[in-house]
Amino acid sequence: MSTTRTLNIAQAVLAKNQGLADSLREGFRRQGVLVLNIVSSPGSGKTEFLARTLDFIAAEVPTAVLVGDLATDNDARRLSGRGARVLQINTDGYCHLEANMVSSGMEHLGIDGVRLLIIENVGNLVCPSVHDLGEDIRVTILSVCEGEDKPLKYPTIFKSSHVVIVSKTDVSEPMGFDRETALRNIREVAPQVTIFETSARTGAGMHAWREFLLAEVRKKTP
Amino acid sequence: MSTTRTLNIAQAVLAKNQGLADSLREGFRRQGVLVLNIVSSPGSGKTEFLARTLDFIAAEVPTAVLVGDLATDNDARRLSGRGARVLQINTDGYCHLEANMVSSGMEHLGIDGVRLLIIENVGNLVCPSVHDLGEDIRVTILSVCEGEDKPLKYPTIFKSSHVVIVSKTDVSEPMGFDRETALRNIREVAPQVTIFETSARTGAGMHAWREFLLAEVRKKTP
Repeated sequence: MSTTRTLNIAQAVLAKNQGLADSLREGFRRQGVLVLNIVSSPGSGKTEFLARTLDFIAAEVPTAVLVGDLATDNDARRLSGRGARVLQINTDGYCHLEANMVSSGMEHLGIDGVRLLIIENVGNLVCPSVHDLGEDIRVTILSVCEGEDKPLKYPTIFKSSHVVIVSKTDVSEPMGFDRETALRNIREVAPQVTIFETSARTGAGMHAWREFLLAEVRKKTP
Repeated sequence: MSTTRTLNIAQAVLAKNQGLADSLREGFRRQGVLVLNIVSSPGSGKTEFLARTLDFIAAEVPTAVLVGDLATDNDARRLSGRGARVLQINTDGYCHLEANMVSSGMEHLGIDGVRLLIIENVGNLVCPSVHDLGEDIRVTILSVCEGEDKPLKYPTIFKSSHVVIVSKTDVSEPMGFDRETALRNIREVAPQVTIFETSARTGAGMHAWREFLLAEVRKKTP
């Protein structure tokens, strides 16, 4: 299958990304900025979840948002007017964000005074898993629409996450979502994660997420 | 952003894939095999849709299935026992199938007598769009859970498709799916596609898909 050559190319590119991510992380630490990297499939509800999150966090904590998408600035528009600085990054064919895009994005947005940086990655459960962006907390969102087996089928992203959000819980019943199996699969693949079950539509579970996030911001503040 | 170097690497790898895909396509044409490449986000219902498809097609048309996943052979197991030859390909970190994996897979499965090859790609709306597998028909599945804006946000895969399946229509109402907007967005980005609206759960829309598929197999048979 001649995979070796391709893998070597990938490894060189990944090593370069890792070096930049490490230096970004050190910069964020010095400035006391908590950084989240939000990952999910297309359509898992990342943007709606972030909109609700900004509604409670941006008034309390100076927040910047970088939004990655292949095309359109729909998401940045949906997230604007909620008290955070928002920049859309169009990746122009890239299926994930890389550390250099975060670096350029923060040069545009400016980091002064920011205490929380939320990066909304491109909708993809695969490539974001091996591209460190210098984040403190990797958040993977899994909607109840996607099936309980996804942690088993996309293990790398779950294993490398700190938080898993089970989203769209208001439609668990019509979707026939098997909650016990889903939670068991998440815990089997990624025992380290904190799990929140949320509905951006009804607000269910958002209070616990808010408390967690505020505590993490406090820990990071110098 | 130093994208140039990375893009050059990508282009060389893609050119190699395209050459192999072209020669696969020529081989499939000579043998009279219709080839489908099924693409979607994780959790859009690809495997369930294929299971239902095999239930009606495999008894009439000798069918082979290649199933790509990062990990597990869950999907191959779900598709077995339905009258088709099925092979699971674990991509081991690759977020998409490439033409060389299809070539290896068909060496394992054997192509003799096969009239229909269905390739279930890795769940990803991005990278599969630029990796030709030698298929005749690229089918993109979009579930009603994912939001009506996906064609606008992932235009490359929709533009390069021949068929779009709007899946899980049985939960359109609880999801608050805006059918008119979704269809308008699909047609705006990809006016060339044939659209089928289906529910694997209830069977809705599967008859029209069956008729289409049988007609395409007949066209390809020498």
